[in-house]
Amino acid sequence: MVHNFNAGPSILPPTVFAEASQAILNYNNTGLSILETGHRTATFQAVMDEARALLKELMQLDDDHEVLFLHGGASTQFMQVPMNLLDDKETAAYSDTGVWSSKAIKEAKLFGKAEVVCSGKENNYTAIPKDFAVPNDAKYFHITTNNTIYGSQWHKIPATSNVLIADMSSDILSRQMDFNAFGLIYAGAQKNIGAAGVNVVVVNKNILGKIKRAIPTIMDYRNHIKEGSMLNTPPVFAVYVCLLTLRWLKAQGGVAAIEKINDAKAALLYNEIDSNPLFRGTIAIEDRSKMNVCFVMHDTSLEDAFLSFAKQQGIVGIKGHRLSGGFRASLYNALPLSSVEVLVKAMQEFASLNK
Amino acid sequence: MVHNFNAGPSILPPTVFAEASQAILNYNNTGLSILETGHRTATFQAVMDEARALLKELMQLDDDHEVLFLHGGASTQFMQVPMNLLDDKETAAYSDTGVWSSKAIKEAKLFGKAEVVCSGKENNYTAIPKDFAVPNDAKYFHITTNNTIYGSQWHKIPATSNVLIADMSSDILSRQMDFNAFGLIYAGAQKNIGAAGVNVVVVNKNILGKIKRAIPTIMDYRNHIKEGSMLNTPPVFAVYVCLLTLRWLKAQGGVAAIEKINDAKAALLYNEIDSNPLFRGTIAIEDRSKMNVCFVMHDTSLEDAFLSFAKQQGIVGIKGHRLSGGFRASLYNALPLSSVEVLVKAMQEFASLNK
Repeated sequence: MVHNFNAGPSILPPTVFAEASQAILNYNNTGLSILETGHRTATFQAVMDEARALLKELMQLDDDHEVLFLHGGASTQFMQVPMNLLDDKETAAYSDTGVWSSKAIKEAKLFGKAEVVCSGKENNYTAIPKDFAVPNDAKYFHITTNNTIYGSQWHKIPATSNVLIADMSSDILSRQMDFNAFGLIYAGAQKNIGAAGVNVVVVNKNILGKIKRAIPTIMDYRNHIKEGSMLNTPPVFAVYVCLLTLRWLKAQGGVAAIEKINDAKAALLYNEIDSNPLFRGTIAIEDRSKMNVCFVMHDTSLEDAFLSFAKQQGIVGIKGHRLSGGFRASLYNALPLSSVEVLVKAMQEFASLNK
Repeated sequence: MVHNFNAGPSILPPTVFAEASQAILNYNNTGLSILETGHRTATFQAVMDEARALLKELMQLDDDHEVLFLHGGASTQFMQVPMNLLDDKETAAYSDTGVWSSKAIKEAKLFGKAEVVCSGKENNYTAIPKDFAVPNDAKYFHITTNNTIYGSQWHKIPATSNVLIADMSSDILSRQMDFNAFGLIYAGAQKNIGAAGVNVVVVNKNILGKIKRAIPTIMDYRNHIKEGSMLNTPPVFAVYVCLLTLRWLKAQGGVAAIEKINDAKAALLYNEIDSNPLFRGTIAIEDRSKMNVCFVMHDTSLEDAFLSFAKQQGIVGIKGHRLSGGFRASLYNALPLSSVEVLVKAMQEFASLNK
């Protein structure tokens, strides 16, 4: 039994693997693989329609908000967001809460002015900034709701009168939120939505079409809305895996139900980190991520030994990012509580062996 | 038995479906699905390395040419090519041989001057232009080697001193060619390389870095070369399907061997079109595509009946694009000769029934 704590691409529900595997041999008794099914067929149109409708339902989106499945990942959106929303002379406000925010800020500067209104850089991104103001004239305010690398998370979405834009790649659908409060949300699918190779964008259509720049056809959100995410050949299989994962989430009871399980998983692991004499958390307690739990050992010389010990219990993917060191356990929606229990038990046993 | 003539996404070899299906359940006995395997793992690095090396080998590329697996499809490249290669005041030359060329031309105009040096538009794209000149100072000359919608193909690559750029989405790896003669080649994978959701770019690195424009990070080919197509999370599964398909192609004997089979398939079908009293081809004989065979019926009122008749024999995907009407049979690498034989037999039987 493997317990997969990979930060992404990451674990998906077992039913998703089973159904996806079958669909590659013979999709819905069509006699064709999903991989050889044309995207303009009724067969695939039904997949795309259901995936979009399910995401709208799970996020409880209103009619102003459109759901798009696009090629690329969040790194594409770092550029595509300002390309669509920010004119040359305009200013956008950004929060800098880690590596991914910084990358988004860098791209925005190619299209207009990017003002960093708050930053966790000085404290090495161990906390989410608390006191800051967003200029009224900022075209939008961009946040990264969860920081996959450092393991911090905005638990309270900042109130702002500006158009709010969020990179939710690593915590979308993991917790309840008023998604309609956002002008635009983007997320690479490979954590909580599906497999790598597709990008979900939720956009309030009222914020589009307000700049002068000529936007390349494939980069203009309006074209994708008009064509129902079929402007060009979509990543057919990746969209299908999203559909399977969204169906699974709905069957679990949706976002409210999965949030309870996610809370329990995170509480179990943080409790062990705080009570185990060998380990400590790296992020301010109130800002700890429930998706990516980062921790180190007081005696860092033991870290390799713990990694090996954990591996013997079937635990994979817990080595920390090189920037934060130590360990990172990613607790995405599909990771069962039982895997966290195995990790906690390994930490306890390792502590017993290293008194 | 289904005979899949879809224009894309399209048929792949049966061994690819079998192996891809298994990899979703348990990849190489890792105990993990390929869908939950992190892209920074040694497991996936080996997939990416082998896929790139195989493509270099099959295309016999020299060391100046780099192979990239990128997000998106040809529609992304329509924009990305001029963004990387064409400065505002510079001119690029384009041939217009159909829908996809026209789209590429449209995007180029956003970045510099796009001069159409030859066009098949006046004869409704039924032939490849023959007499034309490319200005010496054109930064590059762009062709679409095969026109998926109208069913024409450049059988002889035009000699030019300009940097030659080609959209090979629908005929890459189907025939031998001096791929090193090209400055840049791009192709959506979903026809001859693998599944939808990944884009292959082959680029001569010497043509890069020669413009003044600031290029967004994710759009700059140089960044992808530097990071070995791992600048951001790649479309993991789509790259893996490419690897399986490239392995299959090598096992068939590579491009030279598949070209012979492709020639035989196309000859068989065009011979039937030309000899059967009910059908006729739509493209100038010398420019007919060996990948997408377009044909109509003399009596168009019989077309629906033939579609139904063909469907009874398990033939799918032969309805023509709305722009060219009639029928289109796509004979990509993975389509066996036996499927073409079934189609030809259906055409003969239908002719007997409609004397």
